[in-house]
Amino acid sequence: MPGQQLQTAAFEAFHGWLAQSYPLLHAGRSLAEIDEWTLLNLPVAEIVALRAAIETQLRAEPDRRRAARVAQAIRASRLETLGAVEFFRRHPGCEPPVVLAPVTAHYSWDKAMRLLGLGTDQLVPVACRGMRMDAAALEASLEQAAAQHRPILCVVGVLGTTEFGTFDPIHRIAAAREAWRRRGLDFALHVDAAWGGYLASIFRAPDGSLRPHQDVRRAFRYFPSREVYDAFAALDQADSITVDPHKLGYVPYGAGALVCRDHRLFDFVAQEAPYVFDEAPPANYRDKFHALGRYILEGSKSGASAAAVYVTHRTLPLDCDHFGRLQQETIRGAEYFFDRVQRLAEALADLAFVTLPFEPDSNLVCLAFNLRSNASLARMNAFTQRVLQHLKVDPTQPLQAKQFFGSSTRVSYEAIGLAEGRQLLLRLGVDPATFRPDPEEGGRDADSILVLRHTLMNPWLLARINDINYVDLYCAYLERLVRSEAQAGAAAPAARQLVA
Amino acid sequence: MPGQQLQTAAFEAFHGWLAQSYPLLHAGRSLAEIDEWTLLNLPVAEIVALRAAIETQLRAEPDRRRAARVAQAIRASRLETLGAVEFFRRHPGCEPPVVLAPVTAHYSWDKAMRLLGLGTDQLVPVACRGMRMDAAALEASLEQAAAQHRPILCVVGVLGTTEFGTFDPIHRIAAAREAWRRRGLDFALHVDAAWGGYLASIFRAPDGSLRPHQDVRRAFRYFPSREVYDAFAALDQADSITVDPHKLGYVPYGAGALVCRDHRLFDFVAQEAPYVFDEAPPANYRDKFHALGRYILEGSKSGASAAAVYVTHRTLPLDCDHFGRLQQETIRGAEYFFDRVQRLAEALADLAFVTLPFEPDSNLVCLAFNLRSNASLARMNAFTQRVLQHLKVDPTQPLQAKQFFGSSTRVSYEAIGLAEGRQLLLRLGVDPATFRPDPEEGGRDADSILVLRHTLMNPWLLARINDINYVDLYCAYLERLVRSEAQAGAAAPAARQLVA
Repeated sequence: MPGQQLQTAAFEAFHGWLAQSYPLLHAGRSLAEIDEWTLLNLPVAEIVALRAAIETQLRAEPDRRRAARVAQAIRASRLETLGAVEFFRRHPGCEPPVVLAPVTAHYSWDKAMRLLGLGTDQLVPVACRGMRMDAAALEASLEQAAAQHRPILCVVGVLGTTEFGTFDPIHRIAAAREAWRRRGLDFALHVDAAWGGYLASIFRAPDGSLRPHQDVRRAFRYFPSREVYDAFAALDQADSITVDPHKLGYVPYGAGALVCRDHRLFDFVAQEAPYVFDEAPPANYRDKFHALGRYILEGSKSGASAAAVYVTHRTLPLDCDHFGRLQQETIRGAEYFFDRVQRLAEALADLAFVTLPFEPDSNLVCLAFNLRSNASLARMNAFTQRVLQHLKVDPTQPLQAKQFFGSSTRVSYEAIGLAEGRQLLLRLGVDPATFRPDPEEGGRDADSILVLRHTLMNPWLLARINDINYVDLYCAYLERLVRSEAQAGAAAPAARQLVA
Repeated sequence: MPGQQLQTAAFEAFHGWLAQSYPLLHAGRSLAEIDEWTLLNLPVAEIVALRAAIETQLRAEPDRRRAARVAQAIRASRLETLGAVEFFRRHPGCEPPVVLAPVTAHYSWDKAMRLLGLGTDQLVPVACRGMRMDAAALEASLEQAAAQHRPILCVVGVLGTTEFGTFDPIHRIAAAREAWRRRGLDFALHVDAAWGGYLASIFRAPDGSLRPHQDVRRAFRYFPSREVYDAFAALDQADSITVDPHKLGYVPYGAGALVCRDHRLFDFVAQEAPYVFDEAPPANYRDKFHALGRYILEGSKSGASAAAVYVTHRTLPLDCDHFGRLQQETIRGAEYFFDRVQRLAEALADLAFVTLPFEPDSNLVCLAFNLRSNASLARMNAFTQRVLQHLKVDPTQPLQAKQFFGSSTRVSYEAIGLAEGRQLLLRLGVDPATFRPDPEEGGRDADSILVLRHTLMNPWLLARINDINYVDLYCAYLERLVRSEAQAGAAAPAARQLVA
């Protein structure tokens, strides 16, 4: 096609210009001589620097028409211009990239892979241990990608799964990157800290420095484990981090944060590539992001919640002496709950098994229980569901009629795996054989374990101010619920089906 | 690869199941016998019906494991699972689809093409006349797509460009589809009514029926033209329509509407394909969209603005007797402004040319002017820019220091084209030769025409209530601005450069 010839000619013009006016180098060799696999595995920092260097050169090019032609050639060659299909047709030696994320990753990762046209097949789930990314499994996935020459767009570490509150070992992902970089495989490290990002405040002194582990520990019984501490300490290795102010930032919905170590990363997603300008480049960071619509999905939106975040952070800076004190209280509440569950388990010991399915990493605690009389996972789930009914919003009743509201989550077979799932079910007195990936409908088996999920983000849960300890009240209520539902079930086994 | 073999086997299982239990037909022939080009050009309604039929069959399949296998095979074959690259590798006879949109389309279409991995090259710009999609140009684009066997994902009609307020002839797009459907080319019709969607209220009687053209006209001097009337009348042919409540719905930011003629279209983008369920299908529309997170980009968000939209529409239903009365006033304000500009042009006739670059379709009116002493487009733009400075928010000054706030837009060379651009510039006394796609920096030429842009969405602009006619005040102010800036420019020509 003539269009394509034109583009190729333009592309050659680009290469000619580059070679002549600005030979781009990687490890001392010209980029033009380097194979695509190596190019696909340049470190993020190097890619950002290359882009900035080209931009600077283009601005300095005295022949403005030539600069415009070169900029046009770059634009015409980009994935965003060509589309994925045409881009990979032109680079037949390259495979589409994959994203590595723990099996526990939020479902929005799935959504994003579909939306971007990458496809969910390219989201490689990395197995977990205790719902935390398993370093050995990550290593195996990296090994496989290297063997298949599949470029890795990024590895995602989750700093606080929204379902289980478990934290991935960010430091181990960073270490794996260091090691693999030497073997020619590289990737961006993204931390999904939507839930736990604000907890970083606890780890930071007012001067911004990282507090020693022992200092942080002093305020808690258990928190933070060495793994959790190291994960937070490694946040500075991430290329990008997402944080939700509407979660542990206590700010209403409407603001979200994508934090990049190098703000020039945003130039890659800017609506107009700032390669060629009639205008001068923005003088500073503030001016650049003033035109926010160039960098975000929405064009125009309310700034109210962004302003709320700004005011909150100015009022309570994100360190251990200010914002971190709120976070600290939530974790102390969770630690109290953790200990209190032991007493609940003892109180219900005649009737049921009660256990924490995973050791909590911070302020999100799950709880599982099963009647001693039952060995089927399906029936355990049905019983938990009945208890949950009492903790759910009922749109036909006034809110005040409920004593507590609770949420739940399902631990799927894929997420926990057979070995760990088996361990958990044995603790609950459930026959592990009833945990299967392909259960029959209405039978004894199930493919997930239903657990209660507690996000203890209220810093005033314990009896500090008004002499009401809500954790104690909740545990006592839960005990009554389990007993009354067990009685109701024993009295009228047929009714169980109606509810379940 | 074994994985692929497995998928192929599963896919054959799907075909086997289909053939055996539910032969899907198009025009009396089994889908399995129909070529891909024909499949890619099935009408939207037929595609939705096919999907629903498969779902119904899968629910009815007594062998539940078989149903699960078939559902899995469908999922594994989808574009969203495979990603664009692998999908088109498996369908080597298919080209990636294109989206046809007028050159005036909002820049978010560009953003969407990049985001979805389709690439901006696949956004085919359809030329306009008077900033409205040109039916002949659309015909040529359809012709080309048919000749190249490029499937058309959708044709976008803009019902109110946010820059110029011009309306695309939706009825002509619908007619083109009718005609091309008979020749085997089909596409979805999407209407981007972000700006103008609410104006539909004016065209609707309280019983929801379309009002006759003459009835609608009675309240106005010019509105609606036959073309505009027919465009609104054809809205029922659209497969999907986007509307922004925060524009002419007068509701704060935070709600957006994507309206589909058949709500089952949303199943195609649902997070989990509702093919296989342990649960029963949602009983009704309300229950289905209660789980809104399955269908939208965000997982959780504030419902406040959606509630505001609901309350607004309940209070003022979307018909000519209620919400439409607000809209009607905005158009009467715009018509008054339209006439008033004539007087402004006469008042400034000694000094400048003043003109409306396009005939307004509703309540968004642009204005262009040029000093009689100038024939260069670059200098005309610089002068307009100087006038605009007085209409812009100055963050260093109190808002009250400004008399009026105004916005502007640039009419690009690509959008208006040479012929129409020439006409407009001649009306402004500008040498059309100074309008070029590749102007030199700092010279006489420019690649766009800077115009003032007025969104007259305030229904109380005219002297109805408090005896203040804001349109008169604005026009008088604009006249003074043009005169004073012209004088300042004449007195100190060097200062011009500082400002421009």
